[in-house]
Amino acid sequence: MSPANHNPEIRKDAVNNRMVIISPARSRRPSDFKSKSKPSSNPNSDAHQTCPFCAGNEHQCAPEIFRSPEYSTSDWKVRVIENLYPAVSRDVGVKSDDVEYGHADVIGEVRLGGFGYHDVVIESPVHSVQLVDMLVSEVADVLIAYKKRIGQICGVGSISYVQVFKNHGASAGASLSHPHSQILALPVIPSTVSTRLNSMKEYHNQTGKCALCNIHTDKLLIDESTHFISVSPFASTYPFETWIVPRYHSSHYHEIGEDKAIDLGGLLKLTLKKLSIQLDDPPYNFMIHTSPLQITSSQLPYTHWYIQIVPQLSTIGGFEMGTGCYINPVFPEDAAKILREIEVPKPNRE
Amino acid sequence: MSPANHNPEIRKDAVNNRMVIISPARSRRPSDFKSKSKPSSNPNSDAHQTCPFCAGNEHQCAPEIFRSPEYSTSDWKVRVIENLYPAVSRDVGVKSDDVEYGHADVIGEVRLGGFGYHDVVIESPVHSVQLVDMLVSEVADVLIAYKKRIGQICGVGSISYVQVFKNHGASAGASLSHPHSQILALPVIPSTVSTRLNSMKEYHNQTGKCALCNIHTDKLLIDESTHFISVSPFASTYPFETWIVPRYHSSHYHEIGEDKAIDLGGLLKLTLKKLSIQLDDPPYNFMIHTSPLQITSSQLPYTHWYIQIVPQLSTIGGFEMGTGCYINPVFPEDAAKILREIEVPKPNRE
Repeated sequence: MSPANHNPEIRKDAVNNRMVIISPARSRRPSDFKSKSKPSSNPNSDAHQTCPFCAGNEHQCAPEIFRSPEYSTSDWKVRVIENLYPAVSRDVGVKSDDVEYGHADVIGEVRLGGFGYHDVVIESPVHSVQLVDMLVSEVADVLIAYKKRIGQICGVGSISYVQVFKNHGASAGASLSHPHSQILALPVIPSTVSTRLNSMKEYHNQTGKCALCNIHTDKLLIDESTHFISVSPFASTYPFETWIVPRYHSSHYHEIGEDKAIDLGGLLKLTLKKLSIQLDDPPYNFMIHTSPLQITSSQLPYTHWYIQIVPQLSTIGGFEMGTGCYINPVFPEDAAKILREIEVPKPNRE
Repeated sequence: MSPANHNPEIRKDAVNNRMVIISPARSRRPSDFKSKSKPSSNPNSDAHQTCPFCAGNEHQCAPEIFRSPEYSTSDWKVRVIENLYPAVSRDVGVKSDDVEYGHADVIGEVRLGGFGYHDVVIESPVHSVQLVDMLVSEVADVLIAYKKRIGQICGVGSISYVQVFKNHGASAGASLSHPHSQILALPVIPSTVSTRLNSMKEYHNQTGKCALCNIHTDKLLIDESTHFISVSPFASTYPFETWIVPRYHSSHYHEIGEDKAIDLGGLLKLTLKKLSIQLDDPPYNFMIHTSPLQITSSQLPYTHWYIQIVPQLSTIGGFEMGTGCYINPVFPEDAAKILREIEVPKPNRE
């Protein structure tokens, strides 16, 4: 394994069964990658006074689902609210009169009512603070809000999958700069998720092991905490893509306990800080990849949740859209080495 | 089927087995969609004098593969050249000494040498003309250059799939504004392609028909020519996504004849013109979706090539990255109606 020779490679990981071309950019060293656009470059992002997510403007938002702490007034830490412009609707039946009914796994064309939940997690009452700058305990509060909301959604039998995600910066898809993430609950299992489940199941059938319990860390490890590791995945789709993976086997994110959430908060904060230092505060996305809701953990020895963090450094073109195969200019081994060696200054607040 | 009620829907097509959420934007009518960024907004795009793709600068390019007409000098119409910064390498073995050998379809991690071809098709000797403004016969020359180059690559037994694509505009991934497209030939079948083949095969098994011979045109047809139709696909992933589909069954693009290429050139030009008028000259991508090379057409009654055209109007966020499920704010029926009704002014040149 020799990224130094810099010949292109085609790789596929054991988790997502997704192919990537790792093809070093001729003109740039891995350490030269920086973000071109700033997260704050969204023209709508600085309307601080009129931001509906700020403390004091709660009445401008769609209905609240819960806040933390539970009975707080203006001193809340995290609020989970409905999205004012939801992609799916609480009020549409899966089997509505308007659409023909079909199962997502049937062949041919399928139409279902767009039933589901689309919620927003306001990560802080303060407009200008970002997740990376928050206290570890505050990051953990956000992680626990995700857990709690997924737990509630579990009770709705027609919901099959919940995607937690964060878009940070306009070019990563964020329309408001106030720190927030989103939770979208669907009545179907999306294709990327089925592909991952099938791939991990096949790996388990053939090896007797969970692909993420067995993840490659040689040369790819970035950091580790008591319960988690951060790694550059073997077949990174994007430059400096980073995964945070539990060291213990767990198929469902929302089964995380409070102590582990605090440990995860620390590693997530450290990872975001390192990416911010190395890549000059890039726009980024993170996604929690968990397992379908209506299957209990004991049935799933082969799936293992993880967080995927993707700094937005490149543009997607027709090749990627056509093939689903991405061209990554940075070898994961190089990205891991760079991120592993970054020294993060000790913050004043902790 | 009633897009007018504007409740969100979850749809899946019979071709790609890809789920999409069609969720009308509350604040915009389908006819209000316009491009935010201009194709020419790339800061490097106007270096006309120094553009390596311009006639007279041929010596600045990587080696030429062929030109059309074949023995032309400075009056060439189309040139196919090697990419100066190829994503895959002509000089790397699939089974190189540096990497362990693996088949792309094995389970677990796979590493292959990044062997392949990455070529550029210069669509015109003139810097500032765009495909949409060229004569139909000139568009056909480009389409025939694709055919010819794929035909050559067919002779290389280790190449499994060829992706033809065009990135128009910086935000669609183009790094030079001189009109060009790209051809990338790979030693593996990419995941999106296998998924499409499996989905179409399953449809054929269950119905005895080819999913694209049988494509939904009721309310989704935009235009038709002698041999082709343009449609909004039933489960459009992107707003105003348009497919051009042969009306005759054909699994491989490169089997197209000259008369059909001219007919296709006319419909492609018309479609690009309509998208340009409606969406205010958007950046766009197009991809030719064909079938794996080393399987002859007679073996593939279930696959059918087509061109996918995607105007770049929206940003991809964490939800799409995590699930592979896109949120499209425009109902395909509405997009088809708008595009069908656009009157294209008769050009002076034809």
